Amino acid sequence: MYETLLMIPGPTRVSSRVLKAMSKSIVNHRSAVFGEILNDTNEMMSEVFQTENQSYLITGSGTAAMEAALGNVIEKGDKILNIVGGKFGERFMQITETHQGIPVELTVEWGNAANPDDVRYILEEEEDIKAVTMVHNETSTGVANPIEEIGKVLKDFDALYVVDTVSSLGGDDVQVDNFGIDICVTGSQKCLAAPPGMAAITLNNNAWNVVDKTKSKTYYLDLKKYRKSGEKTVPETPYTPSVSLMYAMNEALKMIMEEGLEARIKRHEQAAKATINGVKAMGLELFANEEASSATVTAINIPEGMTDKNLRGTMRNKYRIELAGGQDHLKGNVFRIGHMGNITHREIISTIAALEMSLKEYGYEIELGTGVSAVQETYMPGNNTLEFF
Amino acid sequence: MYETLLMIPGPTRVSSRVLKAMSKSIVNHRSAVFGEILNDTNEMMSEVFQTENQSYLITGSGTAAMEAALGNVIEKGDKILNIVGGKFGERFMQITETHQGIPVELTVEWGNAANPDDVRYILEEEEDIKAVTMVHNETSTGVANPIEEIGKVLKDFDALYVVDTVSSLGGDDVQVDNFGIDICVTGSQKCLAAPPGMAAITLNNNAWNVVDKTKSKTYYLDLKKYRKSGEKTVPETPYTPSVSLMYAMNEALKMIMEEGLEARIKRHEQAAKATINGVKAMGLELFANEEASSATVTAINIPEGMTDKNLRGTMRNKYRIELAGGQDHLKGNVFRIGHMGNITHREIISTIAALEMSLKEYGYEIELGTGVSAVQETYMPGNNTLEFF
Repeated sequence: MYETLLMIPGPTRVSSRVLKAMSKSIVNHRSAVFGEILNDTNEMMSEVFQTENQSYLITGSGTAAMEAALGNVIEKGDKILNIVGGKFGERFMQITETHQGIPVELTVEWGNAANPDDVRYILEEEEDIKAVTMVHNETSTGVANPIEEIGKVLKDFDALYVVDTVSSLGGDDVQVDNFGIDICVTGSQKCLAAPPGMAAITLNNNAWNVVDKTKSKTYYLDLKKYRKSGEKTVPETPYTPSVSLMYAMNEALKMIMEEGLEARIKRHEQAAKATINGVKAMGLELFANEEASSATVTAINIPEGMTDKNLRGTMRNKYRIELAGGQDHLKGNVFRIGHMGNITHREIISTIAALEMSLKEYGYEIELGTGVSAVQETYMPGNNTLEFF
Repeated sequence: MYETLLMIPGPTRVSSRVLKAMSKSIVNHRSAVFGEILNDTNEMMSEVFQTENQSYLITGSGTAAMEAALGNVIEKGDKILNIVGGKFGERFMQITETHQGIPVELTVEWGNAANPDDVRYILEEEEDIKAVTMVHNETSTGVANPIEEIGKVLKDFDALYVVDTVSSLGGDDVQVDNFGIDICVTGSQKCLAAPPGMAAITLNNNAWNVVDKTKSKTYYLDLKKYRKSGEKTVPETPYTPSVSLMYAMNEALKMIMEEGLEARIKRHEQAAKATINGVKAMGLELFANEEASSATVTAINIPEGMTDKNLRGTMRNKYRIELAGGQDHLKGNVFRIGHMGNITHREIISTIAALEMSLKEYGYEIELGTGVSAVQETYMPGNNTLEFF
């Protein structure tokens, strides 16, 4: 009956404005009217990427954009430095293998951020690294990696800097040009608050120089075709795009422009602070190293005596709030709260309140309101100068 | 940017299901396809009224249905007992005057419920009372009147029992047949959780006997025409109805059927309890006599040192939660929280949390979380057996 509140790290709640935009009539995807929408969407996408580059929209999930990034760059036997501190870091490595690259793995303990010095060390030791893959926001662990600092390291080397910002773009600060990111990818359904099914990619000239010399390893994700179609007088996509999702992306990006990217990033920062303060006040432990904690998702250890099934089951079935579980070896040990997209103080307060109630029902000792009051405190004037939060 | 959370006593938040239904293509309002929708909607309306009577939908506000009730019953000089304990009780009296009836006013102090013994006393003293008007839920004061008990009194007299359930139907228990209500009216935008703009009315045989002998005082609201159009092989409305709102009402009523009327009424009861417990724990005072308190709206005295402008302004502009102010002489002294329609524990918790924060910002002494924890307590197992809340 009720809509369940999505507090997972994507897909996130989609506003009625975006849903409404998505329900407009379908137009010909090879027409001036669609060309204008595509152009407009691409331009806003580049603004959110904080880049002068062209951006391209791909009908597919964030993973499709991750594959587009590597599948247009790797030749058989190319060495790729994969920085792996979670499930999505691993995915870049798997894609490297799929396209017959040779992964050089920099393992980062799950819950910690990558260390720029380690990256420099490997680049100095290993010869001919063609590209470095980095996941900005490790959705699986709630860690934000220092993409700016690693970008500084990369300036001293020829390797392309490929960054996955699927669960950070539009919620955390991603300055593609200033951070020296050569290829950046993202997805529609996280901080951008559009429905799932659309991905975006942007490449600078360094990246295009490599792509131009490389035969694409995939047909659907051949970026040269995206560029060519996008350069037509009436811009197009190479294959039929999801027209409805393009409407949705367009509207979602408009809403980001209205809020202002800077304000939006600060709002996410505050939401993360509030969530962290709330769970810590409840006596819960963060999974990730707090200094490395993400602006968009918080991973929390399931307390002793509580099971994942009871915790998330009660949240879902009784309080109609959907949380995410742990992935891979964290399954059953960790749960995750997504606070990205159009989430405000209101949803964080409801979530922390319901979390207190769910835990208390199963015997966790807590005075109701303890976590909530810490969230409230975070948003009180003095701790909060935002206009929208 | 964000959708403001409506915590006012109507219009209430409309679910995306209902909004979606409303955006369907317009059909001919004199066609079999619309006739079926109209029939279906009327039948569900009667289920919610808990009556065997036919119900009729009127494109207009709840006030239109109030006028339809009296404008088809009053002849010049007819005596109408108007029970007046708030703004909407007054409205029935004004409608009585508009149609040249003679109001007999039973004044009830704002904040209190009507006393059935007082009704009996007037009916015994005054001769020829043609109808008694009662507002079930006084939206202006947060009082629920004892419509069942007053119905029992009315059984000993000939007067028609006309009840306004605009802000209670679908949220509080309204048993039209069992309570002996002759004419019952409601609106779309309160507990039914449809958009504003549609009203409904139901009349039993006693009422129709009077209506049949009375020349309607209004053209648009002539109930005999509604009955006649409704009785056609393909049911119709006498004038072009809002087809879109009919779709919305149909979907909103379907959602009520899915939840179950009994469960829905209990959910509202729990929401009222939670709200009252929350504000009392904060040290605030209810405006209405607590024993007479409404299941759908709570009126609260604005505490000393706080202004309505600061309180509701902060709630609206900072926390994006819309509360209602006081009406008429309560303006500036009282604010009101609506907890009707599809409001759940989540919205009540956010509202009470933001209320604490707004008051604290203006110097009201409160420990953050105090009100919220009382709301949480209300919903904890032991105090709450509902499946959906």
